[in-house]
Amino acid sequence: MQKNVSFYRVIYGDTDQMGVVYYANYLRWFEMGRTELLRQIGTPYSEVERRGFYFPVSEVSCRYLRSARFDDEISVETTLQALGRATLVFAYRITRKDDGLLLVEGWTRHACLDAKGKVVKIARELERILKKALAD
Amino acid sequence: MQKNVSFYRVIYGDTDQMGVVYYANYLRWFEMGRTELLRQIGTPYSEVERRGFYFPVSEVSCRYLRSARFDDEISVETTLQALGRATLVFAYRITRKDDGLLLVEGWTRHACLDAKGKVVKIARELERILKKALAD
Amino acid sequence: MQKNVSFYRVIYGDTDQMGVVYYANYLRWFEMGRTELLRQIGTPYSEVERRGFYFPVSEVSCRYLRSARFDDEISVETTLQALGRATLVFAYRITRKDDGLLLVEGWTRHACLDAKGKVVKIARELERILKKALAD
Amino acid sequence: MQKNVSFYRVIYGDTDQMGVVYYANYLRWFEMGRTELLRQIGTPYSEVERRGFYFPVSEVSCRYLRSARFDDEISVETTLQALGRATLVFAYRITRKDDGLLLVEGWTRHACLDAKGKVVKIARELERILKKALAD
Repeated sequence: MQKNVSFYRVIYGDTDQMGVVYYANYLRWFEMGRTELLRQIGTPYSEVERRGFYFPVSEVSCRYLRSARFDDEISVETTLQALGRATLVFAYRITRKDDGLLLVEGWTRHACLDAKGKVVKIARELERILKKALAD
Repeated sequence: MQKNVSFYRVIYGDTDQMGVVYYANYLRWFEMGRTELLRQIGTPYSEVERRGFYFPVSEVSCRYLRSARFDDEISVETTLQALGRATLVFAYRITRKDDGLLLVEGWTRHACLDAKGKVVKIARELERILKKALAD
Repeated sequence: MQKNVSFYRVIYGDTDQMGVVYYANYLRWFEMGRTELLRQIGTPYSEVERRGFYFPVSEVSCRYLRSARFDDEISVETTLQALGRATLVFAYRITRKDDGLLLVEGWTRHACLDAKGKVVKIARELERILKKALAD
Repeated sequence: MQKNVSFYRVIYGDTDQMGVVYYANYLRWFEMGRTELLRQIGTPYSEVERRGFYFPVSEVSCRYLRSARFDDEISVETTLQALGRATLVFAYRITRKDDGLLLVEGWTRHACLDAKGKVVKIARELERILKKALAD
Protein backbone atom coordinates (compact mmCIF):
# COMPACT_ATOMS: atom_id res chain seq x y z
CA MET A 1 0.00 0.00 0.00
CA GLN A 2 1.38 3.42 -0.95
CA LYS A 3 1.77 5.86 1.92
CA ASN A 4 2.23 9.60 1.91
CA VAL A 5 3.96 11.36 4.77
CA SER A 6 3.42 15.13 5.01
CA PHE A 7 4.49 17.65 7.61
CA TYR A 8 2.90 20.70 9.20
CA ARG A 9 3.92 23.12 11.93
CA VAL A 10 1.03 23.96 14.33
CA ILE A 11 0.21 27.69 14.46
CA TYR A 12 -1.46 29.69 17.22
CA GLY A 13 -4.61 29.87 15.10
CA ASP A 14 -4.96 26.07 15.31
CA THR A 15 -5.11 26.05 19.11
CA ASP A 16 -7.95 26.79 21.51
CA GLN A 17 -8.09 28.02 25.08
CA MET A 18 -7.35 24.53 26.45
CA GLY A 19 -3.84 25.20 25.07
CA VAL A 20 -4.06 22.42 22.49
CA VAL A 21 -5.22 22.04 18.88
CA TYR A 22 -8.99 22.43 18.42
CA TYR A 23 -10.50 19.07 17.47
CA ALA A 24 -11.95 20.17 14.11
CA ASN A 25 -8.55 21.29 12.82
CA TYR A 26 -7.15 17.77 12.56
CA LEU A 27 -9.63 17.24 9.73
CA ARG A 28 -7.84 19.99 7.80
CA TRP A 29 -4.64 17.92 8.10
CA PHE A 30 -6.47 14.79 6.98
CA GLU A 31 -7.33 16.80 3.86
CA MET A 32 -3.71 17.87 3.42
CA GLY A 33 -2.66 14.24 3.72
CA ARG A 34 -5.04 12.80 1.13
CA THR A 35 -4.31 15.66 -1.30
CA GLU A 36 -0.60 14.91 -1.06
CA LEU A 37 -1.19 11.16 -1.43
CA LEU A 38 -3.20 11.77 -4.62
CA ARG A 39 -0.40 14.01 -5.92
CA GLN A 40 2.22 11.39 -5.03
CA ILE A 41 0.50 8.61 -6.97
CA GLY A 42 0.15 10.86 -10.00
CA THR A 43 -3.42 12.14 -9.81
CA PRO A 44 -3.45 15.58 -8.15
CA TYR A 45 -6.92 16.39 -6.86
CA SER A 46 -6.95 19.62 -8.89
CA GLU A 47 -6.54 17.36 -11.95
CA VAL A 48 -9.38 15.08 -10.73
CA GLU A 49 -11.67 18.13 -10.56
CA ARG A 50 -10.56 19.41 -13.95
CA ARG A 51 -11.78 16.10 -15.38
CA GLY A 52 -15.15 16.72 -13.77
CA PHE A 53 -14.93 14.42 -10.73
CA TYR A 54 -15.37 15.36 -7.08
CA PHE A 55 -14.62 13.34 -3.93
CA PRO A 56 -16.68 14.99 -1.17
CA VAL A 57 -16.40 13.44 2.30
CA SER A 58 -19.39 11.29 3.19
CA GLU A 59 -18.14 10.09 6.59
CA VAL A 60 -15.33 10.82 8.99
CA SER A 61 -14.13 9.05 12.10
CA CYS A 62 -11.39 10.36 14.33
CA ARG A 63 -9.87 9.27 17.63
CA TYR A 64 -7.93 11.81 19.69
CA LEU A 65 -5.26 10.09 21.78
CA ARG A 66 -2.92 12.95 22.64
CA SER A 67 -2.91 16.64 21.87
CA ALA A 68 -0.85 18.57 19.36
CA ARG A 69 0.35 21.91 20.72
CA PHE A 70 1.48 25.25 19.34
CA ASP A 71 4.73 24.99 17.38
CA ASP A 72 4.69 21.17 17.32
CA GLU A 73 5.75 19.73 14.02
CA ILE A 74 3.31 17.00 13.12
CA SER A 75 3.54 14.24 10.62
CA VAL A 76 0.46 13.05 8.70
CA GLU A 77 0.61 9.54 7.26
CA THR A 78 -2.08 8.80 4.70
CA THR A 79 -2.97 5.59 2.92
CA LEU A 80 -5.76 4.62 0.57
CA GLN A 81 -7.60 1.99 2.58
CA ALA A 82 -10.40 0.82 0.30
CA LEU A 83 -11.75 1.47 -3.15
CA GLY A 84 -15.29 0.77 -4.31
CA ARG A 85 -17.04 1.46 -7.59
CA ALA A 86 -17.92 4.99 -6.48
CA THR A 87 -16.30 5.31 -3.05
CA LEU A 88 -12.83 5.71 -1.57
CA VAL A 89 -11.62 5.36 2.01
CA PHE A 90 -8.44 7.06 3.24
CA ALA A 91 -6.82 6.32 6.61
CA TYR A 92 -4.68 8.74 8.61
CA ARG A 93 -2.20 8.68 11.45
CA ILE A 94 -1.01 11.98 12.89
CA THR A 95 2.14 11.77 14.99
CA ARG A 96 4.42 14.29 16.67
CA LYS A 97 7.46 14.45 14.40
CA ASP A 98 9.90 14.89 17.27
CA ASP A 99 9.31 11.62 19.07
CA GLY A 100 6.84 9.77 16.84
CA LEU A 101 4.12 9.85 19.50
CA LEU A 102 0.73 8.96 17.99
CA LEU A 103 -1.69 11.86 18.47
CA VAL A 104 -4.70 11.16 16.30
CA GLU A 105 -5.94 8.47 13.97
CA GLY A 106 -8.93 8.39 11.71
CA TRP A 107 -10.41 7.73 8.30
CA THR A 108 -12.63 9.43 5.77
CA ARG A 109 -15.03 7.88 3.27
CA HIS A 110 -15.63 9.74 0.00
CA ALA A 111 -18.22 9.49 -2.73
CA CYS A 112 -17.28 10.00 -6.36
CA LEU A 113 -19.55 12.62 -7.92
CA ASP A 114 -19.74 14.31 -11.29
CA ALA A 115 -20.06 18.09 -11.75
CA LYS A 116 -23.84 17.88 -11.26
CA GLY A 117 -23.45 16.13 -7.91
CA LYS A 118 -24.55 12.71 -9.19
CA VAL A 119 -22.80 9.61 -7.83
CA VAL A 120 -20.73 8.13 -10.67
CA LYS A 121 -18.31 5.27 -11.19
CA ILE A 122 -14.69 6.33 -10.77
CA ALA A 123 -13.15 6.91 -14.22
CA ARG A 124 -11.29 3.88 -15.62
CA GLU A 125 -7.81 5.45 -15.76
CA LEU A 126 -8.13 7.00 -12.31
CA GLU A 127 -9.34 3.66 -10.93
CA ARG A 128 -6.29 1.92 -12.38
CA ILE A 129 -3.94 4.37 -10.63
CA LEU A 130 -5.84 4.12 -7.33
CA LYS A 131 -5.83 0.29 -7.47
CA LYS A 132 -2.09 0.40 -7.96
CA ALA A 133 -1.76 2.64 -4.88
CA LEU A 134 -3.76 0.09 -2.89
CA ALA A 135 -1.64 -2.83 -4.07
CA ASP A 136 1.86 -1.31 -4.02
CA MET B 1 -33.86 12.65 27.16
CA GLN B 2 -33.30 16.40 27.14
CA LYS B 3 -32.64 17.92 23.74
CA ASN B 4 -31.21 21.28 22.82
CA VAL B 5 -32.06 22.92 19.50
CA SER B 6 -29.77 25.74 18.37
CA PHE B 7 -29.62 27.74 15.16
CA TYR B 8 -26.87 29.13 12.99
CA ARG B 9 -26.73 30.98 9.68
CA VAL B 10 -23.98 29.68 7.34
CA ILE B 11 -21.46 32.38 6.35
CA TYR B 12 -19.18 32.56 3.30
CA GLY B 13 -16.23 31.68 5.51
CA ASP B 14 -17.81 28.28 6.26
CA THR B 15 -17.94 27.25 2.60
CA ASP B 16 -15.24 25.90 0.28
CA GLN B 17 -14.78 25.99 -3.47
CA MET B 18 -17.21 23.09 -3.98
CA GLY B 19 -19.83 25.69 -3.04
CA VAL B 20 -20.84 23.89 0.16
CA VAL B 21 -19.78 23.89 3.82
CA TYR B 22 -16.27 22.48 4.41
CA TYR B 23 -16.53 19.17 6.25
CA ALA B 24 -14.53 20.21 9.32
CA ASN B 25 -16.85 23.14 10.08
CA TYR B 26 -19.77 20.93 11.10
CA LEU B 27 -17.68 19.97 14.14
CA ARG B 28 -17.78 23.63 15.20
CA TRP B 29 -21.57 23.38 15.22
CA PHE B 30 -21.45 20.14 17.20
CA GLU B 31 -19.51 22.16 19.78
CA MET B 32 -22.11 24.93 19.70
CA GLY B 33 -24.82 22.34 20.23
CA ARG B 34 -23.28 20.61 23.25
CA THR B 35 -22.34 23.95 24.83
CA GLU B 36 -25.97 25.08 24.54
CA LEU B 37 -27.26 21.74 25.88
CA LEU B 38 -25.00 22.05 28.93
CA ARG B 39 -26.25 25.61 29.47
CA GLN B 40 -29.87 24.48 29.08
CA ILE B 41 -29.62 21.79 31.75
CA GLY B 42 -28.02 24.22 34.16
CA THR B 43 -24.28 23.51 33.89
CA PRO B 44 -22.71 25.97 31.43
CA TYR B 45 -19.37 24.64 30.21
CA SER B 46 -17.63 27.83 31.38
CA GLU B 47 -18.89 26.87 34.86
CA VAL B 48 -17.61 23.29 34.44
CA GLU B 49 -14.14 24.69 33.65
CA ARG B 50 -14.26 27.12 36.56
CA ARG B 51 -14.73 24.11 38.84
CA GLY B 52 -11.59 22.58 37.34
CA PHE B 53 -13.11 20.02 34.96
CA TYR B 54 -12.50 19.71 31.23
CA PHE B 55 -14.34 17.61 28.63
CA PRO B 56 -11.93 17.30 25.68
CA VAL B 57 -13.17 15.31 22.70
CA SER B 58 -11.66 11.81 22.56
CA GLU B 59 -13.55 10.61 19.50
CA VAL B 60 -15.82 12.00 16.80
CA SER B 61 -17.94 10.32 14.16
CA CYS B 62 -19.82 12.22 11.49
CA ARG B 63 -21.90 11.24 8.47
CA TYR B 64 -22.47 13.81 5.73
CA LEU B 65 -25.76 13.16 3.98
CA ARG B 66 -26.47 16.47 2.27
CA SER B 67 -24.62 19.77 2.11
CA ALA B 68 -25.32 23.00 3.92
CA ARG B 69 -24.82 26.04 1.71
CA PHE B 70 -24.06 29.73 2.16
CA ASP B 71 -26.90 31.58 3.89
CA ASP B 72 -28.72 28.39 4.89
CA GLU B 73 -30.14 28.51 8.38
CA ILE B 74 -29.29 25.27 10.06
CA SER B 75 -30.67 23.67 13.17
CA VAL B 76 -28.44 21.66 15.50
CA GLU B 77 -30.20 19.12 17.76
CA THR B 78 -28.06 17.83 20.58
CA THR B 79 -28.73 15.14 23.15
CA LEU B 80 -26.62 13.53 25.85
CA GLN B 81 -26.43 9.94 24.67
CA ALA B 82 -24.42 8.16 27.34
CA LEU B 83 -22.71 8.87 30.62
CA GLY B 84 -19.88 6.86 32.14
CA ARG B 85 -17.78 7.37 35.24
CA ALA B 86 -15.38 9.61 33.36
CA THR B 87 -16.88 9.85 29.87
CA LEU B 88 -19.78 11.51 28.10
CA VAL B 89 -21.26 10.94 24.66
CA PHE B 90 -23.25 13.61 22.84
CA ALA B 91 -25.25 12.96 19.65
CA TYR B 92 -26.07 15.57 17.00
CA ARG B 93 -28.44 16.01 14.09
CA ILE B 94 -27.96 19.00 11.82
CA THR B 95 -30.94 19.85 9.62
CA ARG B 96 -31.80 22.66 7.23
CA LYS B 97 -34.23 24.83 9.17
CA ASP B 98 -36.33 25.68 6.13
CA ASP B 99 -37.53 22.22 5.26
CA GLY B 100 -36.13 20.01 8.02
CA LEU B 101 -33.90 18.09 5.60
CA LEU B 102 -31.29 16.08 7.52
CA LEU B 103 -27.79 17.20 6.48
CA VAL B 104 -25.37 15.68 8.95
CA GLU B 105 -25.46 13.38 11.96
CA GLY B 106 -22.76 12.42 14.35
CA TRP B 107 -21.57 11.98 17.90
CA THR B 108 -18.63 12.94 20.08
CA ARG B 109 -17.13 11.09 23.03
CA HIS B 110 -15.49 13.13 25.78
CA ALA B 111 -13.19 12.34 28.63
CA CYS B 112 -13.51 14.10 31.97
CA LEU B 113 -10.15 15.59 32.97
CA ASP B 114 -8.94 17.73 35.83
CA ALA B 115 -6.79 20.85 35.38
CA LYS B 116 -3.64 18.71 35.21
CA GLY B 117 -5.03 16.62 32.36
CA LYS B 118 -5.68 13.53 34.52
CA VAL B 119 -8.81 11.45 33.85
CA VAL B 120 -11.14 11.90 36.82
CA LYS B 121 -14.60 10.81 37.86
CA ILE B 122 -17.28 13.38 36.97
CA ALA B 123 -18.09 15.47 40.05
CA ARG B 124 -21.09 14.17 42.04
CA GLU B 125 -23.34 17.21 41.56
CA LEU B 126 -22.55 17.53 37.88
CA GLU B 127 -23.20 13.81 37.42
CA ARG B 128 -26.62 14.19 39.07
CA ILE B 129 -27.59 16.95 36.61
CA LEU B 130 -26.27 15.01 33.61
CA LYS B 131 -28.15 11.86 34.69
CA LYS B 132 -31.32 13.87 34.89
CA ALA B 133 -30.71 15.17 31.33
CA LEU B 134 -30.34 11.56 30.18
CA ALA B 135 -33.52 10.45 31.91
CA ASP B 136 -35.85 13.40 31.21
CA MET C 1 -27.15 55.81 7.68
CA GLN C 2 -28.71 52.36 8.06
CA LYS C 3 -27.13 50.14 10.67
CA ASN C 4 -27.40 46.41 11.21
CA VAL C 5 -26.88 44.89 14.63
CA SER C 6 -26.22 41.14 14.74
CA PHE C 7 -25.31 38.81 17.57
CA TYR C 8 -23.01 35.85 17.97
CA ARG C 9 -21.98 33.62 20.88
CA VAL C 10 -18.22 32.89 20.94
CA ILE C 11 -17.42 29.15 20.77
CA TYR C 12 -14.31 27.29 21.94
CA GLY C 13 -13.23 26.92 18.32
CA ASP C 14 -12.93 30.71 18.01
CA THR C 15 -10.39 30.99 20.83
CA ASP C 16 -6.65 30.34 20.90
CA GLN C 17 -4.25 29.33 23.65
CA MET C 18 -4.02 32.92 24.93
CA GLY C 19 -7.58 32.26 26.17
CA VAL C 20 -9.13 34.85 23.84
CA VAL C 21 -10.55 34.95 20.32
CA TYR C 22 -7.92 34.45 17.58
CA TYR C 23 -7.45 37.70 15.66
CA ALA C 24 -8.45 36.35 12.23
CA ASN C 25 -11.87 35.23 13.49
CA TYR C 26 -13.19 38.76 13.96
CA LEU C 27 -13.10 39.03 10.16
CA ARG C 28 -15.66 36.21 10.02
CA TRP C 29 -17.97 38.36 12.13
CA PHE C 30 -17.35 41.37 9.89
CA GLU C 31 -18.63 39.14 7.08
CA MET C 32 -21.67 38.13 9.13
CA GLY C 33 -22.37 41.81 9.80
CA ARG C 34 -22.24 43.00 6.18
CA THR C 35 -24.27 40.00 4.99
CA GLU C 36 -26.98 40.84 7.49
CA LEU C 37 -26.88 44.56 6.58
CA LEU C 38 -27.35 43.68 2.89
CA ARG C 39 -30.27 41.44 3.82
CA GLN C 40 -31.79 44.16 6.00
CA ILE C 41 -31.77 46.76 3.23
CA GLY C 42 -33.39 44.32 0.83
CA THR C 43 -30.48 42.96 -1.22
CA PRO C 44 -29.31 39.65 0.28
CA TYR C 45 -25.81 38.85 -0.90
CA SER C 46 -27.01 35.49 -2.26
CA GLU C 47 -29.31 37.56 -4.49
CA VAL C 48 -26.41 39.82 -5.53
CA GLU C 49 -24.46 36.74 -6.65
CA ARG C 50 -27.47 35.26 -8.47
CA ARG C 51 -27.51 38.46 -10.56
CA GLY C 52 -23.87 37.86 -11.43
CA PHE C 53 -22.15 40.35 -9.12
CA TYR C 54 -19.46 39.64 -6.52
CA PHE C 55 -18.07 41.88 -3.78
CA PRO C 56 -14.68 40.38 -2.86
CA VAL C 57 -12.75 42.16 -0.11
CA SER C 58 -9.90 44.30 -1.50
CA GLU C 59 -8.74 45.74 1.82
CA VAL C 60 -9.35 45.25 5.53
CA SER C 61 -8.34 47.26 8.55
CA CYS C 62 -8.98 46.15 12.10
CA ARG C 63 -8.06 47.51 15.53
CA TYR C 64 -8.20 45.16 18.52
CA LEU C 65 -8.95 47.07 21.70
CA ARG C 66 -10.14 44.34 24.06
CA SER C 67 -10.56 40.61 23.73
CA ALA C 68 -13.69 38.57 23.25
CA ARG C 69 -13.66 35.35 25.26
CA PHE C 70 -15.33 31.94 25.14
CA ASP C 71 -19.09 32.15 25.71
CA ASP C 72 -19.19 35.96 25.38
CA GLU C 73 -22.15 37.21 23.44
CA ILE C 74 -20.90 39.80 21.01
CA SER C 75 -22.75 42.41 19.04
CA VAL C 76 -21.63 43.38 15.54
CA GLU C 77 -22.75 46.80 14.29
CA THR C 78 -22.33 47.29 10.55
CA THR C 79 -22.85 50.36 8.39
CA LEU C 80 -22.24 51.11 4.73
CA GLN C 81 -19.59 53.81 4.94
CA ALA C 82 -18.92 54.77 1.33
CA LEU C 83 -20.08 53.85 -2.15
CA GLY C 84 -18.10 54.39 -5.34
CA ARG C 85 -18.83 53.43 -8.94
CA ALA C 86 -17.35 49.97 -8.40
CA THR C 87 -16.42 49.92 -4.71
CA LEU C 88 -18.12 49.69 -1.32
CA VAL C 89 -16.80 50.33 2.16
CA PHE C 90 -18.39 48.78 5.25
CA ALA C 91 -17.52 49.79 8.82
CA TYR C 92 -17.85 47.55 11.88
CA ARG C 93 -17.93 47.86 15.64
CA ILE C 94 -17.86 44.70 17.73
CA THR C 95 -18.94 45.11 21.33
CA ARG C 96 -19.55 42.77 24.25
CA LYS C 97 -23.34 42.53 24.46
CA ASP C 98 -23.38 42.36 28.25
CA ASP C 99 -21.85 45.73 29.04
CA GLY C 100 -21.42 47.37 25.63
CA LEU C 101 -17.62 47.40 25.93
CA LEU C 102 -16.01 48.09 22.54
CA LEU C 103 -13.76 45.17 21.57
CA VAL C 104 -12.84 45.65 17.93
CA GLU C 105 -13.45 48.17 15.18
CA GLY C 106 -12.59 48.02 11.52
CA TRP C 107 -13.64 48.40 7.93
CA THR C 108 -13.52 46.48 4.68
CA ARG C 109 -13.30 47.81 1.13
CA HIS C 110 -14.87 45.72 -1.64
CA ALA C 111 -14.63 45.73 -5.40
CA CYS C 112 -17.66 45.00 -7.55
CA LEU C 113 -16.85 42.21 -10.02
CA ASP C 114 -18.81 40.29 -12.62
CA ALA C 115 -18.77 36.49 -12.93
CA LYS C 116 -15.56 36.65 -14.97
CA GLY C 117 -13.75 38.63 -12.26
CA LYS C 118 -13.81 41.94 -14.18
CA VAL C 119 -14.39 45.17 -12.24
CA VAL C 120 -17.80 46.49 -13.19
CA LYS C 121 -20.05 49.38 -12.23
CA ILE C 122 -22.56 48.42 -9.53
CA ALA C 123 -25.93 47.66 -11.16
CA ARG C 124 -28.31 50.64 -11.25
CA GLU C 125 -31.05 49.14 -9.05
CA LEU C 126 -28.58 47.82 -6.48
CA GLU C 127 -26.84 51.20 -6.42
CA ARG C 128 -30.17 52.93 -5.71
CA ILE C 129 -30.78 50.65 -2.69
CA LEU C 130 -27.23 51.07 -1.39
CA LYS C 131 -27.42 54.88 -1.76
CA LYS C 132 -30.61 54.85 0.26
CA ALA C 133 -28.84 52.82 2.99
CA LEU C 134 -26.08 55.45 3.06
CA ALA C 135 -28.54 58.33 3.29
CA ASP C 136 -31.17 56.90 5.68
CA MET D 1 16.56 44.22 7.75
CA GLN D 2 16.21 40.47 8.34
CA LYS D 3 13.57 38.74 6.26
CA ASN D 4 11.96 35.34 6.68
CA VAL D 5 10.52 33.48 3.71
CA SER D 6 8.11 30.64 4.50
CA PHE D 7 6.01 28.45 2.26
CA TYR D 8 2.52 26.97 2.45
CA ARG D 9 0.35 24.90 0.12
CA VAL D 10 -3.29 26.11 0.00
CA ILE D 11 -5.80 23.43 1.04
CA TYR D 12 -9.48 23.09 0.16
CA GLY D 13 -10.39 24.20 3.66
CA ASP D 14 -8.77 27.60 3.01
CA THR D 15 -11.03 28.37 0.04
CA ASP D 16 -14.61 29.64 -0.10
CA GLN D 17 -17.36 29.31 -2.66
CA MET D 18 -15.89 32.12 -4.79
CA GLY D 19 -13.20 29.50 -5.59
CA VAL D 20 -10.42 31.49 -3.89
CA VAL D 21 -8.93 31.74 -0.40
CA TYR D 22 -11.27 33.28 2.20
CA TYR D 23 -9.97 36.70 3.22
CA ALA D 24 -9.53 35.93 6.92
CA ASN D 25 -7.19 33.00 6.21
CA TYR D 26 -4.34 35.20 4.98
CA LEU D 27 -4.04 36.40 8.59
CA ARG D 28 -3.19 32.83 9.59
CA TRP D 29 -0.27 32.97 7.16
CA PHE D 30 0.82 36.34 8.54
CA GLU D 31 1.04 34.54 11.89
CA MET D 32 3.04 31.72 10.35
CA GLY D 33 5.41 34.29 8.84
CA ARG D 34 6.09 36.23 12.04
CA THR D 35 6.49 33.03 14.08
CA GLU D 36 9.11 31.80 11.61
CA LEU D 37 10.89 35.18 11.59
CA LEU D 38 11.11 35.13 15.39
CA ARG D 39 12.50 31.58 15.25
CA GLN D 40 15.00 32.60 12.55
CA ILE D 41 16.44 35.47 14.59
CA GLY D 42 16.79 33.24 17.63
CA THR D 43 13.75 34.01 19.76
CA PRO D 44 11.03 31.43 19.04
CA TYR D 45 7.65 32.77 20.14
CA SER D 46 7.12 29.71 22.36
CA GLU D 47 10.29 30.86 24.16
CA VAL D 48 8.95 34.43 24.42
CA GLU D 49 5.82 33.08 26.13
CA ARG D 50 7.81 30.82 28.45
CA ARG D 51 9.56 33.97 29.70
CA GLY D 52 6.16 35.49 30.44
CA PHE D 53 5.73 37.84 27.48
CA TYR D 54 2.86 37.92 24.98
CA PHE D 55 2.59 39.80 21.68
CA PRO D 56 -1.15 39.98 20.94
CA VAL D 57 -2.16 41.75 17.72
CA SER D 58 -3.48 45.26 18.34
CA GLU D 59 -4.01 46.21 14.70
CA VAL D 60 -3.96 44.58 11.28
CA SER D 61 -4.06 46.03 7.79
CA CYS D 62 -4.26 43.90 4.68
CA ARG D 63 -4.62 44.64 0.95
CA TYR D 64 -5.86 41.86 -1.33
CA LEU D 65 -4.47 42.32 -4.84
CA ARG D 66 -4.93 38.89 -6.37
CA SER D 67 -6.37 35.64 -5.09
CA ALA D 68 -4.61 32.52 -3.92
CA ARG D 69 -6.33 29.34 -5.09
CA PHE D 70 -6.54 25.71 -4.01
CA ASP D 71 -3.20 23.90 -4.37
CA ASP D 72 -1.23 27.13 -4.98
CA GLU D 73 2.08 27.20 -3.21
CA ILE D 74 2.43 30.57 -1.59
CA SER D 75 5.44 32.34 -0.22
CA VAL D 76 5.17 34.56 2.87
CA GLU D 77 7.90 37.18 3.31
CA THR D 78 8.01 38.72 6.76
CA THR D 79 10.10 41.57 8.12
CA LEU D 80 10.16 43.39 11.43
CA GLN D 81 9.18 46.90 10.40
CA ALA D 82 9.29 48.90 13.61
CA LEU D 83 10.08 48.44 17.27
CA GLY D 84 8.84 50.64 20.09
CA ARG D 85 9.23 50.37 23.85
CA ALA D 86 6.23 48.06 24.09
CA THR D 87 5.14 47.56 20.48
CA LEU D 88 6.29 45.71 17.38
CA VAL D 89 5.22 46.03 13.76
CA PHE D 90 5.66 43.19 11.27
CA ALA D 91 5.16 43.57 7.51
CA TYR D 92 4.14 40.78 5.13
CA ARG D 93 4.12 40.09 1.40
CA ILE D 94 2.39 36.96 0.18
CA THR D 95 3.29 35.90 -3.35
CA ARG D 96 2.51 32.92 -5.55
CA LYS D 97 5.65 30.82 -5.46
CA ASP D 98 5.35 29.73 -9.07
CA ASP D 99 5.62 33.10 -10.75
CA GLY D 100 6.27 35.52 -7.89
CA LEU D 101 2.95 37.32 -8.44
CA LEU D 102 2.12 39.52 -5.44
CA LEU D 103 -1.20 38.41 -3.93
CA VAL D 104 -1.54 40.16 -0.57
CA GLU D 105 0.41 42.64 1.50
CA GLY D 106 -0.17 43.84 5.01
CA TRP D 107 1.16 44.54 8.45
CA THR D 108 0.32 43.79 12.07
CA ARG D 109 0.99 45.87 15.16
CA HIS D 110 1.53 44.05 18.45
CA ALA D 111 1.58 45.10 22.06
CA CYS D 112 3.99 43.54 24.52
CA LEU D 113 2.08 42.21 27.54
CA ASP D 114 3.03 40.29 30.65
CA ALA D 115 1.16 37.21 31.88
CA LYS D 116 -1.43 39.41 33.61
CA GLY D 117 -2.20 41.27 30.40
CA LYS D 118 -0.41 44.50 31.43
CA VAL D 119 1.52 46.44 28.79
CA VAL D 120 5.22 46.13 29.61
CA LYS D 121 8.53 47.19 28.12
CA ILE D 122 10.07 44.49 25.91
CA ALA D 123 12.72 42.59 27.90
CA ARG D 124 16.27 43.95 27.42
CA GLU D 125 17.75 40.82 25.82
CA LEU D 126 14.81 40.28 23.51
CA GLU D 127 14.94 43.95 22.50
CA ARG D 128 18.61 43.60 21.60
CA ILE D 129 17.86 40.66 19.29
CA LEU D 130 14.88 42.42 17.69
CA LYS D 131 16.94 45.62 17.12
CA LYS D 132 19.56 43.54 15.38
CA ALA D 133 16.86 42.02 13.13
CA LEU D 134 15.74 45.54 12.24
CA ALA D 135 19.28 46.70 11.47
CA ASP D 136 20.73 43.67 9.64
